[in-house]
Amino acid sequence: MRVLGLIGGTGWPSTRDYYELLNQTAQRRKGGLSGVELRLWSFDFQKLLDQTGGDAATLTIAFANAAKALEVAGAQVIALSSATGHLFADQLKDERIPFVSLPIACAQQLAFLQVKRVLILGTKMAIEGGVFNQSFESMDITIAPLPKDLQVALDLAIFDELEHAAPSTKCAYAIQEINAFCKLHSIEHVLLGCTELRPQLFINAKLDSTITLHDSTEIHVNRIVEFLET
Amino acid sequence: MRVLGLIGGTGWPSTRDYYELLNQTAQRRKGGLSGVELRLWSFDFQKLLDQTGGDAATLTIAFANAAKALEVAGAQVIALSSATGHLFADQLKDERIPFVSLPIACAQQLAFLQVKRVLILGTKMAIEGGVFNQSFESMDITIAPLPKDLQVALDLAIFDELEHAAPSTKCAYAIQEINAFCKLHSIEHVLLGCTELRPQLFINAKLDSTITLHDSTEIHVNRIVEFLET
Repeated sequence: MRVLGLIGGTGWPSTRDYYELLNQTAQRRKGGLSGVELRLWSFDFQKLLDQTGGDAATLTIAFANAAKALEVAGAQVIALSSATGHLFADQLKDERIPFVSLPIACAQQLAFLQVKRVLILGTKMAIEGGVFNQSFESMDITIAPLPKDLQVALDLAIFDELEHAAPSTKCAYAIQEINAFCKLHSIEHVLLGCTELRPQLFINAKLDSTITLHDSTEIHVNRIVEFLET
Repeated sequence: MRVLGLIGGTGWPSTRDYYELLNQTAQRRKGGLSGVELRLWSFDFQKLLDQTGGDAATLTIAFANAAKALEVAGAQVIALSSATGHLFADQLKDERIPFVSLPIACAQQLAFLQVKRVLILGTKMAIEGGVFNQSFESMDITIAPLPKDLQVALDLAIFDELEHAAPSTKCAYAIQEINAFCKLHSIEHVLLGCTELRPQLFINAKLDSTITLHDSTEIHVNRIVEFLET
């Protein structure tokens, strides 16, 4: 298997989940004490935001520099352990080593499952920034627009609870609103399009059984491991 | 805070725990979306064992090379996310950037708590290799010798269950034997001296209330974060 260069820490709970899932997947496939051989560049998220002021161009350069350093440390494939981070991944596509994109992996997987319309849950920054748009358009999958109040509820759940690995009432409220919205608009497929929106989110509430849930982190991790094996 | 270079993947569950604890500790201290800025070199444990045959000199060189690569990637402090790994840490003490040792951190903490005698639970490789001996002797703390059958039970719990993140009957049996041994020899302090021996171990059984438990991972992580802050 090739060596993975992972860029993470934005935020750390999703990077922990990636590290665990990547290694579990490799161990299940190869047995014994196997894992993924990887180099991780993990930012201090708060420091990164303070230093860059959230400026896209500066963040894009920071991610590209991290990728270059990981390549020097032996990485042969690059991935980000954050969906929102893909807003700043433009330069990663031009690096010498391949970049495994989360939006492309998700669009390919949903197209394979013949999904035509999906609600994508993510941070305001990722959704309004259009992280998923191009990849899903090219696969002829319609993204149902997320209403403003639901986006606000989601961001509160993500930044106030999930980034602190402490899901509680804000997560439960977000799930309740998602259920109501999907029922009203007959939406059958929901993609968890933010790496913080993992099983943790569903501790205090459940999605309606009419909804098929797709986990971008799981899809991305499987794609990365397949890629490392080729 | 300084940038941490962490060497892990031996095995991956303990590295995941380190990553989580380091970031939780930093976030608790600094607030917001703060975490530890770190570079991780994570081995595929099975591949490393297959390539080196477990040879100490070869493993020592592999760890030293990882430390050098992490320094190039910006690390200012080095640590290992594995107690057993400290058997191969000799060259890390001679690197240009400081190395935060787990055995030294534990011996200092137990001396501070005025512990005079302790049972240390770890892998056969770590315990027989004497990972803790020198650090504890220098602090005048006696290490109670672990009987052979208890060591066997512990290694089965670690390698068959905890390295797969799946604690079950072998962990419960090990705890039962530890309780019996401590009662017989009036041992009041037990150090979890293997990074896999974390709260997971205690899902199916509990230590007697007469025993004070010390967690080497927690002690080590606190020492690392203090070190990054100086």
